[in-house]
Amino acid sequence: MSQRIKIKALLTGELTGKEVTVKGWVRAFRQNRFIALNDGSTNNNIQIVVDFENTDPALLKRITFGSAISVVGEMVPSLGSGQKVEVNAKTIEILGDCNPEEFPLQPKKQSLEFLRENAHLRFRTSTFGSIFRLRNTLAFAVHKFFNDRGFVYLHTPIITASDAEGAGEMFRVTTFDPTKPPLTDTGEVDFKQDFFGKATNLTVSGQLEGELGAMALSDIYTFGPTFRAENSNTTRHLAEFWMIEPEMAFYDLNDNMDLAEEMLKYLIGYALEHNREDIEFLTQRLLEEEKQKPQAERSEMTLLEKLQFCLDNDFQRLTYTEAIEILKDSNHNKKKKFQYLIEGWGADLQSEHERYLVEKHFKKPVILTDYPKDIKSFYMRLNEDGKTVRAMDILFPGIGEIIGGSQREERYDKLTQRMDEMGVPKDELWWYLDTRRFGACEHAGFGLGFERLVLFVTGMGNIRDVIPFPRAPKTAEF
Amino acid sequence: MSQRIKIKALLTGELTGKEVTVKGWVRAFRQNRFIALNDGSTNNNIQIVVDFENTDPALLKRITFGSAISVVGEMVPSLGSGQKVEVNAKTIEILGDCNPEEFPLQPKKQSLEFLRENAHLRFRTSTFGSIFRLRNTLAFAVHKFFNDRGFVYLHTPIITASDAEGAGEMFRVTTFDPTKPPLTDTGEVDFKQDFFGKATNLTVSGQLEGELGAMALSDIYTFGPTFRAENSNTTRHLAEFWMIEPEMAFYDLNDNMDLAEEMLKYLIGYALEHNREDIEFLTQRLLEEEKQKPQAERSEMTLLEKLQFCLDNDFQRLTYTEAIEILKDSNHNKKKKFQYLIEGWGADLQSEHERYLVEKHFKKPVILTDYPKDIKSFYMRLNEDGKTVRAMDILFPGIGEIIGGSQREERYDKLTQRMDEMGVPKDELWWYLDTRRFGACEHAGFGLGFERLVLFVTGMGNIRDVIPFPRAPKTAEF
Repeated sequence: MSQRIKIKALLTGELTGKEVTVKGWVRAFRQNRFIALNDGSTNNNIQIVVDFENTDPALLKRITFGSAISVVGEMVPSLGSGQKVEVNAKTIEILGDCNPEEFPLQPKKQSLEFLRENAHLRFRTSTFGSIFRLRNTLAFAVHKFFNDRGFVYLHTPIITASDAEGAGEMFRVTTFDPTKPPLTDTGEVDFKQDFFGKATNLTVSGQLEGELGAMALSDIYTFGPTFRAENSNTTRHLAEFWMIEPEMAFYDLNDNMDLAEEMLKYLIGYALEHNREDIEFLTQRLLEEEKQKPQAERSEMTLLEKLQFCLDNDFQRLTYTEAIEILKDSNHNKKKKFQYLIEGWGADLQSEHERYLVEKHFKKPVILTDYPKDIKSFYMRLNEDGKTVRAMDILFPGIGEIIGGSQREERYDKLTQRMDEMGVPKDELWWYLDTRRFGACEHAGFGLGFERLVLFVTGMGNIRDVIPFPRAPKTAEF
Repeated sequence: MSQRIKIKALLTGELTGKEVTVKGWVRAFRQNRFIALNDGSTNNNIQIVVDFENTDPALLKRITFGSAISVVGEMVPSLGSGQKVEVNAKTIEILGDCNPEEFPLQPKKQSLEFLRENAHLRFRTSTFGSIFRLRNTLAFAVHKFFNDRGFVYLHTPIITASDAEGAGEMFRVTTFDPTKPPLTDTGEVDFKQDFFGKATNLTVSGQLEGELGAMALSDIYTFGPTFRAENSNTTRHLAEFWMIEPEMAFYDLNDNMDLAEEMLKYLIGYALEHNREDIEFLTQRLLEEEKQKPQAERSEMTLLEKLQFCLDNDFQRLTYTEAIEILKDSNHNKKKKFQYLIEGWGADLQSEHERYLVEKHFKKPVILTDYPKDIKSFYMRLNEDGKTVRAMDILFPGIGEIIGGSQREERYDKLTQRMDEMGVPKDELWWYLDTRRFGACEHAGFGLGFERLVLFVTGMGNIRDVIPFPRAPKTAEF
């Protein structure tokens, strides 16, 4: 028997006239005659034509939605309108039955929420097949983008003893017996006796360690899981998510912006080139979903148009100070349509402000730079004005902030002064400070939340639908 | 001023005659005249020729080992013997000083142990530059190998509530106050009140979740961090390490072995093709290290020869039962040279036995299959004999087991019987069992410990030297 061929390859039609073996899961079986078979290699099914008059009725009965089958047959041009080619089955073997009475999935539309509760099976639906193929393509494109440019992929640590970045609440990692951790003489938990000899947490960012790599290898990037123990039960937050964090020696903020914009366009373009069918399917899905909404809430552009739009337009670059002027003078502000009104310089921007700039004012992706130092992290390079830092946030339609980054403060004196001002413990970060003592140079970097990117490219609305098994408050199934 | 060019590109000589800008860290400064400059893009330095007679002596003094500098000059053919091209400096700018009195690194050989304590700086040495460029190349090759074959990269969860695989001790993840976790009425810790509403741990393997993906997408792989809370302070163990775990629907054990062998050869070949200079450097390093050893303990092959040897030879495939016969009848066993003598069938193989088979008996990589079920995991497919399972371990010279895998048990009855026998809780794994109830099919997979591979390809002896910031008992620096 010939070797199994994947459906994506069969659908090219190159094997027409040949005998093939195809394996997959039944998506539909109509008129005891036409099987729609899918193996996850593509969003499209292949049609298997069954010679039902010469097939054991007991076998026919076992060809049900969800069952796994193996088919040997001839690839032929299709007479039907839905497909170019199909397989005339010679033999069909049931690999695994699927009792339709018990199978949680049904051959009809099921809610995203129900599918989330059945995340172990949702890969078998068209929507989630497309989402996770796109996620894969985007992840590969990330690696290819950086590899082509000579960046070194650095695995920064997941378990960390430093709490220095202050990016949010952390998960503690321990091997202590939870009921009776060892105590010191003064009655405090004696972390010296814990596995690592100190209190340890799950990392919130690989940036600080990434900088150590950049200060020798020039250009590095991380791509790994990061964690936030925040009690946010929203469609935008996860307790466990994947981050991409490049760090580049000899880069200033402009180089940083150029790289980030080039990267985002590359990733979106790569997905459009390699997973067009999946994006077209998800574009259709979103159109149907939006039909349920009032006209005013529907997107002006389809998913496909929105992605193309990001490729075709330069991102608008402006300073925080310029953005504040725009927002303050906007009709939105004057008519008090913002929940948080912009009174003046210094305010942290809310999601509503970011989206106003992107979706209403500029109508394209925006890069905001030079934020007030007081609302940004200690490691961002202080500007000459002494008030602002060389930060950049990239804002996307529908998503808000998709990238945050900055030129890093490479001047030892300025950095330690900021650490003192912000209460960041210098002794814990001796290794970080060492890179400012020995052969420092200007450098920059940024962070891309991978799930935010996947949300944008798939057009999905809930971040729990773009990661296989989401982790969130009270949610750690599978 | 022209844009900075990386040293790897400069050393090709293509820019000879052009004015270039180069930035990096000083590796040496001889005769007030010749700077060896490195930027991490390659193991090789570029030579900068300084016109010391026309350069400010105060600036010359600041060109020290470790300082960061920017040079503008002309690329010219080199008159010296060590290099093809060099840069005649026109201007030199000190970007960051490096006080040689305080800089922990010194321009001489320093012990690997000392460098481990200075892991934040060791990237700047030739050895660790080569190691981490190779690690990067191998990681990219992993993604490329699977991407080219239509596998979907799946991010399986890091935080997990299941302890089912039983692969080892786990780290607990919690947000409880360690001094007073909430208790139930019966005085036990009330994990319902913990962040995820249950007790959670760091994953030991993504396999079980990976299988869920394969049962819809056909071929998936994971590449992520995994954890063991084992108190092993050895040169072979880490508490945090990266694993690659492919899972393939419609694969039997032979397909599995074919894929694993093809993958290992691809990865090694890719490294040889893309990082030859780094491997040559590490080959030389190992030769020098081995000069310190007695003749009998030195390797028969150099690193480069060993890697080429793995490409050129088919891996030897045999069953556990055949291996036991070979070991039992070996002179090594008869002369009691094994610490654990092989008495007969059923014994678990120790590292000494694996290395005997690979290094003494077959003198090539070995794949052992069909192990006794009692020494393997519950999810491995039971053979017809009722005694052995369709497991495979790939054994490499110097490393021992580099890959472990199996055909998975897809038969619901057989699987649940094994779970009962081995005390694996079926209710916790309801989602895993579902894939055996709904459209099951034969499938297989394996796990590759990424650091083991990097150890093998770099020829390093301690696993803590092939991951940027190692995590081990009492070790969580940086």
